[in-house]
Amino acid sequence: MPLVGVGDVSKRILLGRKLRSAQLGETLLPKKIALPVFASDALSSVAYAPDEVFIMLSLAGFSAYVWSWKIAIAVALVMAAVIASYRQTVHAYPSGGGDYEVATVNLGRTAGTTVASALLVDYVLTVAVSISAAAQYAGAAIPVLHNHEATVGAVMVVVLMAMNLRGIRESGTFFAVPTYAFMAAVIGTCLYGFLQLAGGTLPDVESANLTIVPDENYEGSLTTFALLFLLARAFSSGCAALTGVEAISNGVPAFRRPKSRNAATTLLLLGSIAITMMVSVIVLAKQMGLKYVDPSEQDRLLYPDGTPVGDGYEQNAVIAQIAKAVFSDFSPGFYAVVIVTGLILVLAANTAFNGFPVLGSILAKDGFAPRALGSRGDRLAYSNGIVFLAVMAIVLIVAFNAETTRLIQLYIVGVFVSFNLSQAGMIRHWTRKLTTERDPATRRRMQRSRVINAIGLSFTAVVLVVVLITKFLAGAWITLLAMAFFFAVMRRIKGHYDDVSDELAADEGDKVLPTRVHAIVLVGKIHKPTLRAVAFAKASRPNVLEAVYVAVDPDDTTALVEAWERRNLGVPLKLLHSPYRELVNPIVAYASEIRRANPRGVVAVYIPEYVVGRWWEQFLHNQTALRLKGRLLFTPGVMVISVPYQLRSSQLAVDRSQRGAQRVRPGDLRRGQVDERKSRRGQVNR
Amino acid sequence: MPLVGVGDVSKRILLGRKLRSAQLGETLLPKKIALPVFASDALSSVAYAPDEVFIMLSLAGFSAYVWSWKIAIAVALVMAAVIASYRQTVHAYPSGGGDYEVATVNLGRTAGTTVASALLVDYVLTVAVSISAAAQYAGAAIPVLHNHEATVGAVMVVVLMAMNLRGIRESGTFFAVPTYAFMAAVIGTCLYGFLQLAGGTLPDVESANLTIVPDENYEGSLTTFALLFLLARAFSSGCAALTGVEAISNGVPAFRRPKSRNAATTLLLLGSIAITMMVSVIVLAKQMGLKYVDPSEQDRLLYPDGTPVGDGYEQNAVIAQIAKAVFSDFSPGFYAVVIVTGLILVLAANTAFNGFPVLGSILAKDGFAPRALGSRGDRLAYSNGIVFLAVMAIVLIVAFNAETTRLIQLYIVGVFVSFNLSQAGMIRHWTRKLTTERDPATRRRMQRSRVINAIGLSFTAVVLVVVLITKFLAGAWITLLAMAFFFAVMRRIKGHYDDVSDELAADEGDKVLPTRVHAIVLVGKIHKPTLRAVAFAKASRPNVLEAVYVAVDPDDTTALVEAWERRNLGVPLKLLHSPYRELVNPIVAYASEIRRANPRGVVAVYIPEYVVGRWWEQFLHNQTALRLKGRLLFTPGVMVISVPYQLRSSQLAVDRSQRGAQRVRPGDLRRGQVDERKSRRGQVNR
Repeated sequence: MPLVGVGDVSKRILLGRKLRSAQLGETLLPKKIALPVFASDALSSVAYAPDEVFIMLSLAGFSAYVWSWKIAIAVALVMAAVIASYRQTVHAYPSGGGDYEVATVNLGRTAGTTVASALLVDYVLTVAVSISAAAQYAGAAIPVLHNHEATVGAVMVVVLMAMNLRGIRESGTFFAVPTYAFMAAVIGTCLYGFLQLAGGTLPDVESANLTIVPDENYEGSLTTFALLFLLARAFSSGCAALTGVEAISNGVPAFRRPKSRNAATTLLLLGSIAITMMVSVIVLAKQMGLKYVDPSEQDRLLYPDGTPVGDGYEQNAVIAQIAKAVFSDFSPGFYAVVIVTGLILVLAANTAFNGFPVLGSILAKDGFAPRALGSRGDRLAYSNGIVFLAVMAIVLIVAFNAETTRLIQLYIVGVFVSFNLSQAGMIRHWTRKLTTERDPATRRRMQRSRVINAIGLSFTAVVLVVVLITKFLAGAWITLLAMAFFFAVMRRIKGHYDDVSDELAADEGDKVLPTRVHAIVLVGKIHKPTLRAVAFAKASRPNVLEAVYVAVDPDDTTALVEAWERRNLGVPLKLLHSPYRELVNPIVAYASEIRRANPRGVVAVYIPEYVVGRWWEQFLHNQTALRLKGRLLFTPGVMVISVPYQLRSSQLAVDRSQRGAQRVRPGDLRRGQVDERKSRRGQVNR
Repeated sequence: MPLVGVGDVSKRILLGRKLRSAQLGETLLPKKIALPVFASDALSSVAYAPDEVFIMLSLAGFSAYVWSWKIAIAVALVMAAVIASYRQTVHAYPSGGGDYEVATVNLGRTAGTTVASALLVDYVLTVAVSISAAAQYAGAAIPVLHNHEATVGAVMVVVLMAMNLRGIRESGTFFAVPTYAFMAAVIGTCLYGFLQLAGGTLPDVESANLTIVPDENYEGSLTTFALLFLLARAFSSGCAALTGVEAISNGVPAFRRPKSRNAATTLLLLGSIAITMMVSVIVLAKQMGLKYVDPSEQDRLLYPDGTPVGDGYEQNAVIAQIAKAVFSDFSPGFYAVVIVTGLILVLAANTAFNGFPVLGSILAKDGFAPRALGSRGDRLAYSNGIVFLAVMAIVLIVAFNAETTRLIQLYIVGVFVSFNLSQAGMIRHWTRKLTTERDPATRRRMQRSRVINAIGLSFTAVVLVVVLITKFLAGAWITLLAMAFFFAVMRRIKGHYDDVSDELAADEGDKVLPTRVHAIVLVGKIHKPTLRAVAFAKASRPNVLEAVYVAVDPDDTTALVEAWERRNLGVPLKLLHSPYRELVNPIVAYASEIRRANPRGVVAVYIPEYVVGRWWEQFLHNQTALRLKGRLLFTPGVMVISVPYQLRSSQLAVDRSQRGAQRVRPGDLRRGQVDERKSRRGQVNR
């Protein structure tokens, strides 16, 4: 069904219910498309999570790399638990509210707001981290970009912002091609690597002949505590691989029926693929002798002769190094892997641009964000959100010089805050359900779900504690501060809406009718808009009707009075003298005057306006009318009636707004609001 | 009389005419105050014009300085002619339109628009040149600022902008103190110098022992042509002293009665003082052995031992050098001169901030600028003008590194374009008057005036040609380009207003009344604003009245319908179904639908609104109402009725707007719109 323009709506009013139901099902996603649509964020972390594990372990030198596959298993275990938990959520909350809804419904408003703050911060960090990693891959593929990662990243964000402001047509293909290509590239590379391993021909990566100097804090033999802390840091960095797995729980409404079952299946698929990819990459990299340190500490890497590699050495990302070695005899293979990895990272950042306005609209519906964010139509509100997201991400990218390793320190705490609250909410959900449920089979299923969520919570709680301990000083405090800020703002907004709602609550006195209507038509010149306003005012048959003119210049006034009398309109003309050449104050004062004389009556102020269409024409007109309307709204007992007269150029604005209404907004696809036919229809019509 | 707030206006309506006449006379300026108010711009050029003469002559070495006093006389002659001409203008056009009015009335719209473009460009250059010169004086007084003139200048412009945006209370004292201090300082210094000269004790300036290396183009003995060209360049730079003399002709309405005579006397006084100061400075500087070159070519200055002075040498402005030498035994004297000179330059820049909006309002009245600029009340329009002026001036100051010498090349061409058109207009004025005037005494006076203006025109025409020849490539082309741009924009705006006016001209068909009024009240919730809108709509007794609700969510809809029926308001509720959750389009479409069914009727759309007062609250409300109103204005046959409900916080906005209305706007004093009592009253009331 196409997006409906002005002309089509009459039909829609008549056939409303029919179209409503017809709408469902048509725009929904089959699993094979839903997977790439929701998976790019989760899968893309394979492009940087293994790197972070190796960087952390490298602090204690190459010998610590023996722990790498155990950490991979630990992360995989946590991910499996989280995936299993979200499969329960998807069944219990098919409405797409995700963690926010689960926390709000089961744990109350404070928990919900906390989750929302965490998610808002996470969207910013998703953009910052994904784009920083993408910039590093761009540096690997195009050497001239090396060492300009922050600039490259900022440019990428600006391009993404522009695309999302403009409205990109999101289709299944848009997501499917790069996501499946990425899966194929990484799994293909690893498979080929494992085949070589089995055949004993596995080559070393380029960094295999280097040695790692341990960080000064980890020199010599480690105490048990120091080793544990190191492994905890490596593990919590590796947990970056879990970011994005919750996306599907927000997108259930976009799935084909049976929605929940399809979403749960897709989630399982996503988890299996992500775990496979991550473990394969880590194991293979270790086998191929990878040496990998924090790019800002490259002097801890030494050549075989003992000299530091220095800043001239380009330390390629882990996947890039593996691909380079595995495809040593086939450089297009290397470039293909690097390019699709960069693409999926950009796509992951783009999902944040989609998710941010969607979350904004949910928060707006609940009164935690400006209500304008809640309506699809307000392009300005969407735009503000997108620009805000882009600016914050650019600030982070520039401040952290696009160093993924440092940004990761900020990233994971928000994700795990919402994981925890969501799991806790799910446990409460099942417990509550169990108090009323009597059917034994259902009860058994619910109890099983509760156990799964409890296991999930125990895993994510441990991770959150580990993350807080290992990352608080390294950057997580920034995230917590930002969350607190968002939390406070949302509470303030909600409080305001609640206050207003109380103040506006209707009581019986509100039905009383005004005793009389005193209408005044503002006259500036005698032209078509004025005459139309007089005619409309007359048609409304007020108790008193007069025209009002603010007299500034004596000559103009005389001319106008004469012209008024000559026209014989049957409406008396009242002059307001304004020695200071002001227009607004005398009118506002006169309206107040009338109202004071008759407090039970109402003053109807008719303002003739003409409307133009070009943007620069707007600056040339209506400024006084606008100011006047703004002021009159604050005057009790007054209603303001705009009587528009459409100039020929106004048609341009109508056309423009119709084009605007046909535009796709970020996140539409994920909410099930875009279909393929709309785009085709739009093109035919143009 | 105080500026009138909302509460006072009722009295003003009743006593309108009385207050109107009372207003006149009270805010007007006596000559001794008018002189400083209008003179700062003209007098301040003494602070840089002599310097420019010496810089140009120095191209041919010190020997060319023998021409300096002859050039001073030539500039003085031109100034005398221009002053004499403007005394005629002041008598013939006491309304204060100045050059723009003279050119428009006598030479037509194109000439008037040309003058306006020239003036707009000139305001920008007045700020840039005055502030650049002031920054140089600041560098002389505070050595640490030396070589940071561009930054100092930009900061000064920002401060001026902020003061003008905020609204400074301009009083006579504000102008009188620095202007009279400047006159006293310069004339006092020169007088003291001449006394020392008579007594044979005149000291040399600090640069007297230096030698000047001629520019490579002027080495050896000069051809007559080269000498003439050099003198022409020096002369046209010296003509910078003439900028600002036209200010009084724009300010006649601010003078006490007899306005024209007082203005003419003030003009004469201004001219005499400016000529005296300029000639004195040039003669004295020559006598004291000044050596002065373009600050960007300081390597052309040599120490007695033949080494260049280099960048370490601080070449003080001419007045500063004279003061330093004359007051060699009294350094406070030197500082006093430098400080008041800096002050008067800043004051001159401030007059541009005053004049720019005044010119804007005159242009707006004639349809050459957005009409909003014409009304006193629109603070936003004023602000835009001030910011525009400041930004352009900063761009120039930074681009030309605050080098007065280079900015002067851009400056004078605009001034002389308007001088010429104004004089030509005055000749045409007298010629036209003479065709009807019969009284011999008056005819003689007119003929004398015409001769004066003709002499003025012949002088200014020669100067314009000289300026164009000597300065076109040096920068005047930028000015002409900018003028052409402003000219084109103003013509476009005027054309638009003319088109609209044609399209809006009323004809007889416009009196026809709509046959019926179909009113719809938009309902979003049932609260006080909605009930008030329903009551107001009922009171207007339309032919059809219905409430309209856009149904998005089935549960919400059911709840609302039930609540509506329970309230028993006697108004039917119509549901518009909106499967895509849009609010605006269904309503616009429904209104169009009703109108189509009855093309002779009118649709009255009642929109309940509640108004809040805090700026951030505005973001949280009314966005839908705003968008809806914006769209409905483009829908033919619809009138839009805002029914406001004032929340408690809205009182804050009313208070704020009343405070804003009491603010002084730049240029008020020069237009005779500020008096001293207003400020006192304002303070008492607070």
